[in-house]
Amino acid sequence: MEFNFLSTCQLESREVYKTADSLKHYIKDLAETGEKNSYETPESFINLPFDEQMIRSVLELKEKYVSPKLKYILVIGIGGDSLGTKGIYDALLGNFDIFEKERYPKLIFMDTINSAFREKLMGLLSQIKDPEELLINAISKSGSTMETRDNLDFILENLSYAKDRLICITTASKNNEMWNYFCEKSNVCLKIENKVGGRYSLLSPVGLLPLAGVGINIIDLLEGAMEMRKVCIDSNVENNFAALSSASVYLNYKKDKDIYNLFFFHPELESTGKYCSQLIAESLGKEKDLNGKTVNVGITPITSLGTTDLHSMEQLYLGGPKDKFTSFVFTRELEKEKKVYALLKGVEKTYDKHNMPYSEVVLNKIDARSLGEFIMFKQIETIFLGKLLNINAFDQPAVEEYKKETQKLLNQ
Amino acid sequence: MEFNFLSTCQLESREVYKTADSLKHYIKDLAETGEKNSYETPESFINLPFDEQMIRSVLELKEKYVSPKLKYILVIGIGGDSLGTKGIYDALLGNFDIFEKERYPKLIFMDTINSAFREKLMGLLSQIKDPEELLINAISKSGSTMETRDNLDFILENLSYAKDRLICITTASKNNEMWNYFCEKSNVCLKIENKVGGRYSLLSPVGLLPLAGVGINIIDLLEGAMEMRKVCIDSNVENNFAALSSASVYLNYKKDKDIYNLFFFHPELESTGKYCSQLIAESLGKEKDLNGKTVNVGITPITSLGTTDLHSMEQLYLGGPKDKFTSFVFTRELEKEKKVYALLKGVEKTYDKHNMPYSEVVLNKIDARSLGEFIMFKQIETIFLGKLLNINAFDQPAVEEYKKETQKLLNQ
Repeated sequence: MEFNFLSTCQLESREVYKTADSLKHYIKDLAETGEKNSYETPESFINLPFDEQMIRSVLELKEKYVSPKLKYILVIGIGGDSLGTKGIYDALLGNFDIFEKERYPKLIFMDTINSAFREKLMGLLSQIKDPEELLINAISKSGSTMETRDNLDFILENLSYAKDRLICITTASKNNEMWNYFCEKSNVCLKIENKVGGRYSLLSPVGLLPLAGVGINIIDLLEGAMEMRKVCIDSNVENNFAALSSASVYLNYKKDKDIYNLFFFHPELESTGKYCSQLIAESLGKEKDLNGKTVNVGITPITSLGTTDLHSMEQLYLGGPKDKFTSFVFTRELEKEKKVYALLKGVEKTYDKHNMPYSEVVLNKIDARSLGEFIMFKQIETIFLGKLLNINAFDQPAVEEYKKETQKLLNQ
Repeated sequence: MEFNFLSTCQLESREVYKTADSLKHYIKDLAETGEKNSYETPESFINLPFDEQMIRSVLELKEKYVSPKLKYILVIGIGGDSLGTKGIYDALLGNFDIFEKERYPKLIFMDTINSAFREKLMGLLSQIKDPEELLINAISKSGSTMETRDNLDFILENLSYAKDRLICITTASKNNEMWNYFCEKSNVCLKIENKVGGRYSLLSPVGLLPLAGVGINIIDLLEGAMEMRKVCIDSNVENNFAALSSASVYLNYKKDKDIYNLFFFHPELESTGKYCSQLIAESLGKEKDLNGKTVNVGITPITSLGTTDLHSMEQLYLGGPKDKFTSFVFTRELEKEKKVYALLKGVEKTYDKHNMPYSEVVLNKIDARSLGEFIMFKQIETIFLGKLLNINAFDQPAVEEYKKETQKLLNQ
């Protein structure tokens, strides 16, 4: 992965390095977390790619449950329990499922509750002749996810062999409501480390099991993540992509660029963008800072796709308010796509002329290794932004409020 | 369709009615445009549903080209030439294509230039045994769309029978570069009225031909649009949904709510949201106002999906900066989905508590008629917002700039 920003982020380099440098204590803490290789802090998601025991347990389950007969893995999970998995799957395979009807196994994501979806899904599953054609992954980190429980109940009620083909993934705590519920419903229950937050759990069994199940090379994915972790815990911030990127975004945010536009020039990466949106939105949108002061900070992420959105959103970006920081994400291979590459570079030149800030993330290609790098980069960039904004990047206190209101309505 | 806003938009009703009332001259103009039933102004897209001759020509082409053998309609077009069509198709059929492998005909959208996409698409098309299984709609309103020409050339080069199964749609002008190009490539060329802008052309042959081709009831779609046109050119603004909605959005924009969050509680409507995003972004994001003054106005649209984004974006919406106006879009049928409905209402109650402004758009159900209503509502709402912002809602001058830079690079 390549990261370019210095001549395009509309900031003095001195300023960016100074801000990046202010992260050095936190970077040191991260490096220590990495050395410990355990799960004691929320930041310890950076140790997931190195967790050999966890990886082994995923591969063993794959060995046991995935045969050449497998056609579908049904992922029952919402938010952090499925968005990242979908991000990787769609980038590598899913974006073309409509064209490759007979390519198996496929991932199917059941996240929200929707009658039309259930009806169509059951239409598909009714064609299954052998239970080995289906595997079900029910995932709930928090243990209190209404949609996931409802969907799992629905599947168990409507599919006689579901229990035998069900693997549940949740936090390790035995008192966890979901753990008890899952263990009752299923023969296999896999743990997620309690300290690893939902949106940072992609490289745990949450993402690894379904991705390995459909044949994605999770070792490559993890090796890419390992490599990028090394870059992003480098105390020499001039080489630390996450520190440099978060500093550029933060300093632009301070200049009222409060929208972060992830502009992918490969349509396959749209779902990856949605996962990044969750990372940014849920981690950084906070009412209170670490001192308890009401601040209502937050960066609104948007995902754009090149060249499609040049014919839809670009007029706003160029003509409208100058409230956006853009990250152009593409691969080295895009150069071969001459016209698209010229469009990207034409857009960048226009941004330069208008002093519109952006950076470039250049992946080698769209493969598991590069996606592993990208995911780790975005995760660490996010927690660095949390540090710079002086907020807790790991909680989501505001959502409790609507959940309470919902519960009141359901109890009526 | 139902539209609710008065108790939830965080504005004095007097203020909203006054602003809506300031549109009354424009509404009178629109009503006159409607009476003339011709295509003399950009606003005349409101006459499309009443254009019997145009509708007849679409249905005749359908009759001629669509047989029970038809499996795929390949739409080659980008931006306004395809986003609206995809919005309707996905809402009614496409969202479940992955589950209904044997439901035909299906729409396939080829918008940007992408080698991986082309390879997979050709893999699918190579399975076609009879040319009648495929229909190609190549669409370019502007006549200078690089992607569309490139994709059409690719298809013509790689599919021997393509020319016989190709219908081209572009502006009527005989001097139009694309018209000449298309007429050379194809046996049938269908016109779009020159005054109707790309993003307002969904109810012209641009959208109607492919939608009718896959069996969507375009008469219902158009009848819904007709009905909503009536509501939205009503000079009594208290009954005029588009006037009331644009006034609420505009007044909130003046109070720094510069992000317009379309929050759909039916995942099938995601692509419809993308079409609405284009309407809002491209129509309202403008450097200069009608007096030539530099203003850089614009409303940034985002699409959220319930309940998925409650587990991803909602923390930002509730905890982060108060810079959003939300439109919750759902159907009357959602009440039957008890838990999801309670989640929606729980979220709304939380918005009330935090004085976060929103409106509700309640469709009867997800069908062609309701979508026709919704589309016309959003189109007229957008041009009313353009009027209130004192900008031209029909042009896109800023995109010329990056196109020039691109051309320079390609000529090197």
